[in-house]
Amino acid sequence: MSIKLYDLCGLDESFRFSPTCWRAKAALAHKGVDFETIATPFTKIKEHVATEQKTLPYLESGGDKVVDSFAIALYLEEKFPEKPKLFNGPEGVAAAKFVQSWTNTTLIPLIIKLVVKNIHDSLAATDQAYFRKTRENMLGARLEDVQNASQENIEAFREGLKPLRTMLAEQRFIGGKEPLYADLIVYGTLKWALKTAGFDIFASDDPVKTWFEAIDQRYEGV
Amino acid sequence: MSIKLYDLCGLDESFRFSPTCWRAKAALAHKGVDFETIATPFTKIKEHVATEQKTLPYLESGGDKVVDSFAIALYLEEKFPEKPKLFNGPEGVAAAKFVQSWTNTTLIPLIIKLVVKNIHDSLAATDQAYFRKTRENMLGARLEDVQNASQENIEAFREGLKPLRTMLAEQRFIGGKEPLYADLIVYGTLKWALKTAGFDIFASDDPVKTWFEAIDQRYEGV
Repeated sequence: MSIKLYDLCGLDESFRFSPTCWRAKAALAHKGVDFETIATPFTKIKEHVATEQKTLPYLESGGDKVVDSFAIALYLEEKFPEKPKLFNGPEGVAAAKFVQSWTNTTLIPLIIKLVVKNIHDSLAATDQAYFRKTRENMLGARLEDVQNASQENIEAFREGLKPLRTMLAEQRFIGGKEPLYADLIVYGTLKWALKTAGFDIFASDDPVKTWFEAIDQRYEGV
Repeated sequence: MSIKLYDLCGLDESFRFSPTCWRAKAALAHKGVDFETIATPFTKIKEHVATEQKTLPYLESGGDKVVDSFAIALYLEEKFPEKPKLFNGPEGVAAAKFVQSWTNTTLIPLIIKLVVKNIHDSLAATDQAYFRKTRENMLGARLEDVQNASQENIEAFREGLKPLRTMLAEQRFIGGKEPLYADLIVYGTLKWALKTAGFDIFASDDPVKTWFEAIDQRYEGV
C-alpha cells in the first residue's frame, strides 16, 4: 500500500517549506513507513489532489484520504500500531494538542515576522499573487512591512523558545526519553523557519538547536 | 498515615497564595486523600519544617519528606496508584514538565507584574523585608516599579493564556477528558494570580475562566 503525501512546494519543486507538511513528513519518518511526496504549489492543490481540498498536507493511501497534519499523525498511529508510537495514548493526544496550540499561537507569529516575504519570493508567480493576497489579508499589512529579521525580532523568536529550552534542562524530548508527535509539531515548525529564514535561527549554544538536530538526524534524507 | 503540607501564608494565616503550594494542594485534592496544611510564613520555613529546607511546598507523611511541587505530585502518584491518576505514565510526566516550563517561563512573569506588591503587602513585617530583598534582587527593580495592573499588562497576561484558550476549543482539559497534573500546574498558578490580584484576572467570556472554575469546583473546600 503506497502512501502519497501532497507537499507544498515553491517555484523550485524541491523547495518544501510548509510547517504542517514538515510535521506530517516527520510523523511518517518516525513511523518508518515508505511514502512519496507530491510537490504541490499553492494554486494547484485542487488540481493535484483532485478534490475540493484546499490545504496541505493531504495524505492518500489506498482508498484513505486524510486532511490536516494532526489527523495524519492520528491516522498513522492507528494504522501502524506496531511501529514507534507518536502518541502516549488518548491523554498523550490531548497533551500534543496543547503543544500544537502553543506552537501555532506563539511560535508561528514570531517566525512569520522573520520569513513571510522570503516565502513569497520562493514561489511561482501565480502562487505569489495568491500568497500575497491571502497572507496580507490575514496579517492586515503588506508582506514587506511584516518581515523584518531585525536583531530584536530574532531575539523575540529565541525568547519564544524558552518553555522548550527550560524543559530541555531536565529531559531530552517533550516525549521524555524519545520524541513523540508533540516534539515533531515543534520540529516541523522550526524546520520551516530554518528553510525559509536564510540564516541560522538558533543561537549557536542553544539547547533547542541540539534538540532540533537530534530529531533532524533521525529523519535524515526524508 | 497523616499528610502534612507546609503551606506559605501571609500575615493573616488563612491567606495562602503560593502558586506551587496551590499546585501541591490541588494534586492532593485530585487524589482525594486527607491532609492538613501548616500555615508557614516565608521567614519561618526552617523553624516550622525543622530542616534546612528553604522553599515550600514541603510535604511530610510518616517518615517521608518531599520537597518541590512536582516531586510531591510524583510522590502522590506512586503512593496512591489506585486513586485518580495525576500523570499518564512516564511520557505523561515528560509532557507535564513541558507544561510546567511554559507556565513558569511565560505565565508567571506576566502575573508578577500584576501582583508582586500586593503579595508584599499581605505579609507580616519580617516577611515583607525578606520578600522585598529577595524579589527586588531577582527582578532588578523596586516592587513598586514592577507592579502595574494597567490595562496593557492585564491584556498581555490574558494574551499569554492563548495556547490554553486555543486548545480548549478542542478539548476540556490539557489531560483530555479529565484534568491531569498538567492542568493543575496552570490552575495553581492562576489561583495565585486570582488570590493576589484583587480583581478578576479573566475576561468574563474567556473559556479559560470556565476551565479554571471547573477545576476549582472539583476541589472546593481544599
